[in-house]
Amino acid sequence: MLVILHPGTDPELSARVLTAIEQMGGRPVPMTGYNRSAILVEGDRSRVDPRRLRALPGVEDIISDAKPFRRAARESVSEPTVLKLPGGLTIGGEEIVIMAGPCAVESAGQLLETARAVRAAGATVLRAGAFKPRTSPYSFQGLGVEGLKLLAQVRSETGLLIVTEAMDVETLEPVAEVADIIQIGSRNMVNYSLLKAVGRLNKPVLLKRGMAATITELLLSAEYILSEGNPNVILCERGVRGFDSSTRNVFDLSAIPLVHQLSHLPIIADPSHGTGDRHLVPAMARAAIAAGADGLLIEVHHQPDLALSDGGQSLFPEQFSTLMRDVHAIASLLGRRVAAAELVP
Amino acid sequence: MLVILHPGTDPELSARVLTAIEQMGGRPVPMTGYNRSAILVEGDRSRVDPRRLRALPGVEDIISDAKPFRRAARESVSEPTVLKLPGGLTIGGEEIVIMAGPCAVESAGQLLETARAVRAAGATVLRAGAFKPRTSPYSFQGLGVEGLKLLAQVRSETGLLIVTEAMDVETLEPVAEVADIIQIGSRNMVNYSLLKAVGRLNKPVLLKRGMAATITELLLSAEYILSEGNPNVILCERGVRGFDSSTRNVFDLSAIPLVHQLSHLPIIADPSHGTGDRHLVPAMARAAIAAGADGLLIEVHHQPDLALSDGGQSLFPEQFSTLMRDVHAIASLLGRRVAAAELVP
Amino acid sequence: MLVILHPGTDPELSARVLTAIEQMGGRPVPMTGYNRSAILVEGDRSRVDPRRLRALPGVEDIISDAKPFRRAARESVSEPTVLKLPGGLTIGGEEIVIMAGPCAVESAGQLLETARAVRAAGATVLRAGAFKPRTSPYSFQGLGVEGLKLLAQVRSETGLLIVTEAMDVETLEPVAEVADIIQIGSRNMVNYSLLKAVGRLNKPVLLKRGMAATITELLLSAEYILSEGNPNVILCERGVRGFDSSTRNVFDLSAIPLVHQLSHLPIIADPSHGTGDRHLVPAMARAAIAAGADGLLIEVHHQPDLALSDGGQSLFPEQFSTLMRDVHAIASLLGRRVAAAELVP
Amino acid sequence: MLVILHPGTDPELSARVLTAIEQMGGRPVPMTGYNRSAILVEGDRSRVDPRRLRALPGVEDIISDAKPFRRAARESVSEPTVLKLPGGLTIGGEEIVIMAGPCAVESAGQLLETARAVRAAGATVLRAGAFKPRTSPYSFQGLGVEGLKLLAQVRSETGLLIVTEAMDVETLEPVAEVADIIQIGSRNMVNYSLLKAVGRLNKPVLLKRGMAATITELLLSAEYILSEGNPNVILCERGVRGFDSSTRNVFDLSAIPLVHQLSHLPIIADPSHGTGDRHLVPAMARAAIAAGADGLLIEVHHQPDLALSDGGQSLFPEQFSTLMRDVHAIASLLGRRVAAAELVP
Repeated sequence: MLVILHPGTDPELSARVLTAIEQMGGRPVPMTGYNRSAILVEGDRSRVDPRRLRALPGVEDIISDAKPFRRAARESVSEPTVLKLPGGLTIGGEEIVIMAGPCAVESAGQLLETARAVRAAGATVLRAGAFKPRTSPYSFQGLGVEGLKLLAQVRSETGLLIVTEAMDVETLEPVAEVADIIQIGSRNMVNYSLLKAVGRLNKPVLLKRGMAATITELLLSAEYILSEGNPNVILCERGVRGFDSSTRNVFDLSAIPLVHQLSHLPIIADPSHGTGDRHLVPAMARAAIAAGADGLLIEVHHQPDLALSDGGQSLFPEQFSTLMRDVHAIASLLGRRVAAAELVP
Repeated sequence: MLVILHPGTDPELSARVLTAIEQMGGRPVPMTGYNRSAILVEGDRSRVDPRRLRALPGVEDIISDAKPFRRAARESVSEPTVLKLPGGLTIGGEEIVIMAGPCAVESAGQLLETARAVRAAGATVLRAGAFKPRTSPYSFQGLGVEGLKLLAQVRSETGLLIVTEAMDVETLEPVAEVADIIQIGSRNMVNYSLLKAVGRLNKPVLLKRGMAATITELLLSAEYILSEGNPNVILCERGVRGFDSSTRNVFDLSAIPLVHQLSHLPIIADPSHGTGDRHLVPAMARAAIAAGADGLLIEVHHQPDLALSDGGQSLFPEQFSTLMRDVHAIASLLGRRVAAAELVP
Repeated sequence: MLVILHPGTDPELSARVLTAIEQMGGRPVPMTGYNRSAILVEGDRSRVDPRRLRALPGVEDIISDAKPFRRAARESVSEPTVLKLPGGLTIGGEEIVIMAGPCAVESAGQLLETARAVRAAGATVLRAGAFKPRTSPYSFQGLGVEGLKLLAQVRSETGLLIVTEAMDVETLEPVAEVADIIQIGSRNMVNYSLLKAVGRLNKPVLLKRGMAATITELLLSAEYILSEGNPNVILCERGVRGFDSSTRNVFDLSAIPLVHQLSHLPIIADPSHGTGDRHLVPAMARAAIAAGADGLLIEVHHQPDLALSDGGQSLFPEQFSTLMRDVHAIASLLGRRVAAAELVP
Repeated sequence: MLVILHPGTDPELSARVLTAIEQMGGRPVPMTGYNRSAILVEGDRSRVDPRRLRALPGVEDIISDAKPFRRAARESVSEPTVLKLPGGLTIGGEEIVIMAGPCAVESAGQLLETARAVRAAGATVLRAGAFKPRTSPYSFQGLGVEGLKLLAQVRSETGLLIVTEAMDVETLEPVAEVADIIQIGSRNMVNYSLLKAVGRLNKPVLLKRGMAATITELLLSAEYILSEGNPNVILCERGVRGFDSSTRNVFDLSAIPLVHQLSHLPIIADPSHGTGDRHLVPAMARAAIAAGADGLLIEVHHQPDLALSDGGQSLFPEQFSTLMRDVHAIASLLGRRVAAAELVP
């Protein structure tokens, strides 16, 4: 951290800044130029609050360390993290993992039929929500525990891994029993109590970017999980809020190469929420793979017209099959391969 | 709800839309123009999903009812809600309620000294967080239960009411014991499990707008609380995320008259988070009152230089006193008055 | 400017940065801390490009001078600029200037009737566009030169000053002949050719903030005008683009105190475009004055229902009269006064 | 256009809306449901202003036609437009056109060397600005007419086509003499005077999306050019303004498939401005091709360290060569091919 002082700052004010840094446990190192001075903050910076320093008289600006996250930072681990998933799958290395399925678990028939369709097309993980966070209290809120049971059944029938969302600490335990990957949704990216709770488990966590979250904030939310002891974090770009209502969100694909530059964690892309429109999903799924995504999370429904939520952004099974062929081709062109369904027992 | 069909839509496709509406429990009423038709959806629309309809072939657009919130809507209650707070205070009527204090409870001395200062200047509610949601896991996370005890002490010593944040369902009970008003922070505006939990209490709830929340979404989050049975909701504008880093947030004061137009619920303003800069707080606090805010939430610290969080946006006690004079004057000019500290026992 | 180097940067790379700074005409001053070094850039920094430096290996970050604008900066002039307008009016000092009128000049009758109404209510400047930038080529584009003639007539009949928009260099001359204040609209805030052209005139310029412009960028656009020799710049906050379609723009009132902190130039507020909704205009006009605005720009139409553009955000004359009473009261409370119509000949 | 009335709107108010529509030249068709009515607007809607209608009492909402643009709309032309460029190149069909080169023309040597490098790697169009719109008046503003001469020379020496920016009507003629494709930059997307002027030429125009422009607004700006008679418009996604400063802009690649859905015009992508960071450009260039872009606009500099502008986002020639191999492969995978340099004389 570097504290930039105004040109010609009074020595008394400088001294006050030095004192404040020491009070917060840092070691201040003055640096002097012709017109302007600065103070480098060394030592234990964990308690040094940049906003507090910024408010001191004489301080013009604070240069925070670029990366307030530590365990999530590229520098902390020499190689990209390759997470092991059940069934011999990996994510973050050569393999690209395809997670597909309906927005919500609606019924045994719907879930099984869609699961079979996505498995046939090459997906290895089934996505479907049992607990659904909905903007309106009057919308369908998911089948809850009943939905979890259906997920468990379908897993045993199809061999697909399960990714499903945990909405709160209270229902985390039953979700964690069924899920191979626990999803933390966008709305909960800054629910730190929930992040700490999944951080104490030893299960892969799929952490979705919040609607208005910077990449630094996404990585700091990952840091909450990592710092509790769970290293199995997969990030997910799913679009951020923008000003143009012609798409549901702004699908910020630059996040993919940016996260790969800043962090060792794997990152996948969700073009269904990123665009909110079935017609745009295949193009953006291809783009995500070309940008280097470690996987895809895609909504597919055997009858999107009848879906209880997000029908408009769900692919028909045939569209998903066609897309998968492109995904295979682009992946192999980039020296990667789609994780094979054959690996699933 | 109105379903707009493409010009020249095939009758077969129209029929399919009619069927879909009926399947979801609505009563479709076709409306025909020269070039274009539409379908009005009457009857029980609670299960009619606009996104599902939008995805049907032939459908050009869906006009949702302007107000998906019901209990929060102006139409549901003829008069603005005037909430009764302990000590004879009210909010939402003629009185303007001033809530002030430090960002976080740091120590008995800090809390008491600041509390006395804000009370002397005319505040009636003390704000201070015992549980602090922080972007980084390495930042000061609040004193927790210990902080709650200090709040209870200061209340009994000063008579000030207490507003303090509940971060999760697990710690809601101890927070609710101490708080006169339970704060739901921006990050938790879409934590529906927490909203439902405070909805089952019978205490005033201060619901802060999320960083990327529309006003409709803010009112839908209020609806989660109201629909569980707790009618005591106070909304709070505290800035939304924007593209200009010269202020911490974009303080969207138009939300004040807009909420008053759409809803009967009271709304207050938090210029401290709205701007993130002590130098801008007084001007924006005055502006909030002039825009019709039902109260203010302001960070004040007896020694902002030493604050453990948000020091840069905290007012010095003298600044707060000066501001309060302007607030009184603008309020009376608009036919309102600042809720008096004398009312507090 | 300060160039922050990565910890442990190779001396060879540091040397390359020093060379690059010298090549661009700056004088580099190395500053050394324990773990990390930095280079302060002194001397002539006009050609030192921060983006070029940032791209050099070893460079972690660049701290640009907070204020790339110079003539617009508070530091360059000790006191707030008080511009003299014709008729003895001033803006930027004690007086608050009210500019009101229809969005567009539509006809002699409409213009005169509205002009009389706003004058009666206390406005001293008439706003109305002869040239109208419209998002669609098929919308009403203004009366053009014919509209300018009507403005000149109404000025001589009412004594009101005229503020009207110049859309391009080609029509700047006729606009400048009629206008007492030349408006540069939001869309043209970054039309540098036009800014330079008005910078060569000696007339007051009302520069509106662009839809996605930061305050720094607004002040840099002012700098284009100032640096050509025209010191008569009035800034205008009129809302920026946001994600919530419930208002036309996000009316960013914090810009008012922020500009007053960073610059000596006056700034006014346009609540009509800021909100896009007549029902929100009075509250936000009051708020703007309370925040310290040096004036208001408000759309008023004698028959808003029939307006050819922006009818929905135009006040009825009676609403405007009522609002003016509040504006007077808040102004005097803050030690200011509304510039009086009596001053106009 | 459809005017939605409030439930239970008084017949007198309805009648007033009908009259207003007729006054503006539209033909109103009332549509009645059980609880709610609407008015369909037929006939000549060119003068019917939705904002004016929205402001009338009794009106709840206005459903504008989804596509206010006409000539740019997919419906107006049955097939995608395939523009012919000089040298036998086409854009918008099977061929993908690569435009590359430095941000600005700096010198004969720089331009020629970079031009040769990008040609060798497979680009067919050279990009470089002679007139540079810069945020600060103190930044390098381009070589102007001198730069145009250098562009003409390099074209005759290399056979590359030239795309270069026109900043204003005054300098449009000399730019149009040299340019094979006239670029309208982001800042000028809403400079309607300039759009109309290029609309009267018969040269291809590259229209870049504005920083805060919706896709509808981008297409309406294209409409300004088309409606003046110039059908040769190429759109360009180059990122929009967002809240995360970790990239220069939010590169909104969904715009590619969305424009292809809404319009017949070709659209290319500019990952250099989209990301602002050389390290992210190759991944996002690949992604753009995978999303269906009809071309790329990429900054390449033979010595990015020494570039006078945008050095940090310019590729080294070797990086560009490597990228071109991936571009070829992804293009062919999608049934397209990179327009060949051999076609250039």
